[in-house]
Amino acid sequence: MIKDLAARADGPVRVSGWVEKVRDQRYVQFVVLRDESGAVQLVNGGVLREPDPENPRSDILVPRTQTISELTHGTFITVSGELQHNERVKLGGVEIQIDEIEVVTRALPDNPVAEDSGIDVRLDWRFLDLRRPEQHLVFQVQTTFLHALRQVWIDRGFIEIQTPKLMASASESRAELFEVDYFDGTAFLAQSPQFFKQMAQAAGFGGIFEVGPAFRADPSFTSRHATEFTSIDTELSWIDSHLDVMELHEELIVAGVAAVKERHGEEILKHFGVELEVPARPFPRIPLAEAKEIVKAEGYEVPRADADMDPEGERRIAAHVKQKYGSDFVFLTDYDASIRPFYHMRHPENPQLTNSYDLIYNGTEISTGAQREHRIEVLEAQAVEKGMDPAELSFYLDFFRYGVPPHGGFGMGLNRVLMLMLQQSSIREVTYLFRGPNRLLP
Amino acid sequence: MIKDLAARADGPVRVSGWVEKVRDQRYVQFVVLRDESGAVQLVNGGVLREPDPENPRSDILVPRTQTISELTHGTFITVSGELQHNERVKLGGVEIQIDEIEVVTRALPDNPVAEDSGIDVRLDWRFLDLRRPEQHLVFQVQTTFLHALRQVWIDRGFIEIQTPKLMASASESRAELFEVDYFDGTAFLAQSPQFFKQMAQAAGFGGIFEVGPAFRADPSFTSRHATEFTSIDTELSWIDSHLDVMELHEELIVAGVAAVKERHGEEILKHFGVELEVPARPFPRIPLAEAKEIVKAEGYEVPRADADMDPEGERRIAAHVKQKYGSDFVFLTDYDASIRPFYHMRHPENPQLTNSYDLIYNGTEISTGAQREHRIEVLEAQAVEKGMDPAELSFYLDFFRYGVPPHGGFGMGLNRVLMLMLQQSSIREVTYLFRGPNRLLP
Repeated sequence: MIKDLAARADGPVRVSGWVEKVRDQRYVQFVVLRDESGAVQLVNGGVLREPDPENPRSDILVPRTQTISELTHGTFITVSGELQHNERVKLGGVEIQIDEIEVVTRALPDNPVAEDSGIDVRLDWRFLDLRRPEQHLVFQVQTTFLHALRQVWIDRGFIEIQTPKLMASASESRAELFEVDYFDGTAFLAQSPQFFKQMAQAAGFGGIFEVGPAFRADPSFTSRHATEFTSIDTELSWIDSHLDVMELHEELIVAGVAAVKERHGEEILKHFGVELEVPARPFPRIPLAEAKEIVKAEGYEVPRADADMDPEGERRIAAHVKQKYGSDFVFLTDYDASIRPFYHMRHPENPQLTNSYDLIYNGTEISTGAQREHRIEVLEAQAVEKGMDPAELSFYLDFFRYGVPPHGGFGMGLNRVLMLMLQQSSIREVTYLFRGPNRLLP
Repeated sequence: MIKDLAARADGPVRVSGWVEKVRDQRYVQFVVLRDESGAVQLVNGGVLREPDPENPRSDILVPRTQTISELTHGTFITVSGELQHNERVKLGGVEIQIDEIEVVTRALPDNPVAEDSGIDVRLDWRFLDLRRPEQHLVFQVQTTFLHALRQVWIDRGFIEIQTPKLMASASESRAELFEVDYFDGTAFLAQSPQFFKQMAQAAGFGGIFEVGPAFRADPSFTSRHATEFTSIDTELSWIDSHLDVMELHEELIVAGVAAVKERHGEEILKHFGVELEVPARPFPRIPLAEAKEIVKAEGYEVPRADADMDPEGERRIAAHVKQKYGSDFVFLTDYDASIRPFYHMRHPENPQLTNSYDLIYNGTEISTGAQREHRIEVLEAQAVEKGMDPAELSFYLDFFRYGVPPHGGFGMGLNRVLMLMLQQSSIREVTYLFRGPNRLLP
């Protein structure tokens, strides 16, 4: 690994990676070699362009010089040489004097991605785009973040489940549903694991978690929507209200951000200019109605006919919270029942409101959580009230007919979290392979 | 948690769970209460069936007695009472004298799953089936196994990726492909993350892993096939051959089985009668042709026209290996090119064979691994040779045109691993919600 070179003593080494840059000067050649861990400068001091009968090493030096001259960006090579520490070398303070160079796979010379290529060109050539160190860092961050979350769940004794993505009916609503030809019938792609993670509660699993794909046939082209995304889901039993879900949520977020900051904080600052902050607990909590009053008092009236917030309102309440409490996170709570799904539990004292919340991170919603209605009569009535057909939901409603504990949970979009953590302009930048209405390739 | 009761001193406690059994005797009532951690006996010594003006606690005892009489299997309750240690109680050596009982959600009395219900009835009512302690154990084992694997990857610096399940074209073959209506066009569900995990190699990610769903429109009804299953995938760069992949594979398996044995070994023995063995490294390795000779010498000629093994042959070579080397695992290596996908690398000295392997566990194949062909000219020629259209594969072939290191990896079916580890008869028993040609519900 290239990152380990600086700690090694001078002497023979062998490294592999791809060519990031070649400086082919008259008397010396430099190659910047990169692997997933970093970059190092290679030096060929023995440049010889033409055979020289006076030079006993002519047979070695001429082909080596030519090989380096012909190296294209992205070509994968393996190099043997002498490691030398040299303070004047900016790149890590070491360089390698090339003895032998082996071309493993030659790259085509016409790199289709330029420094100033737009996002669509970069996505067309995502595998080249991902070679950039800052893109690689995104997925290191993702790895660390998810592992930290899973450690919290494991420590709490939660069970990891894999719910099916093929369903016989809609998971939440008929809208934005992908249909699949399923033998002689039709299946649908799960929009969320909602029903199936609640099944685990009826099954007595207690706490569960899942990190997996979710699908929405959403025709929009915003910076925060995709037709396929990674959903982080958890659900737990024997809660008193959504406040218990929010506590778990905080614990997960703090563990995830802290792990990322510890492991990648410096790199994030260097590549993205972001000084990551581990949030303090508890996160500020504001009932939605109050949040709307706050942004109204500050001059913004949410232009919606329904009771919901809009993205601009979320940005403004987040700015308010950041200024007042110094927090990048804020829970908006007590959403109106009219804008929540039928399975959210209503307030015991005010059935117009739900035991639910959204989590806002740096001004954008990343998650919805709630206590679920577990009383079958109430649940069924709420489904009918929302215009749903209980017959079609019967497989789900059955979960509640044979006993289920009070429970709740949340779903959170991984790509949104990464986008907001690294302050990127679009989830396209932080998704391994983005999927949208016009994009199924590569 | 019920499992924590035994370690507590006698005194007041509060527990929640579901009713597993009620013994409603004339002068005493017993309830077995279960949660995800275990079961405990509740006792009502104050049985009073009719109001008794002489008994000052009549108003409390009569309704309590009636509540317990009416408890149905699966009803979720919360109980306050006195914990008492009592060696004569088989269930954990403790019982709880009930003070107060709260019915949280009443279950319908007609439990549709009986002790002797067949697998189809149990799958229809999977959430009830999953309440059985041995079913719950399956998913505890799954959780521990996956976490142990991820820890190995994390320790090795591997990157976790989430590859898209929606694709513009087939991932491996046109056969067994699910079609999705995708806006005005068609998408396909990924049969494996094969192409996308190889993309990470071209992107310079080094080592990567993914645990996620894969989809096969396979109309068969065997005990080891599903239309949707969880695939464990990994891929790594700069290998010398498939032997490097096999080493990683061994390391992962050993870590996974060791963690499961340590954490759940006793429970597995109790519920499944299986004494789990942590395999010794290296696993036995037998070239496929030799394996066929061995089973032939032992009296079984594989009845296939092609060069492949069949399930019976796999069972026999596994029995041979178990007897000769004491190993539950065996690598069959060097598969014939005719029965391997176009992207498997061929032997340098014998292009009829591939740098590939299958991993057999207790007689059944759980995984295929290989070194991948990374030389574009060779890869393209092999695709054409297999009758594939390079134009349709262009997005994939492009990965190799701009440089890629030598690499390899494997895909492994999680459900098969669990089935074989716990010696279950079908993956239906170890899949949270099985999906087959006739099964999309619940």
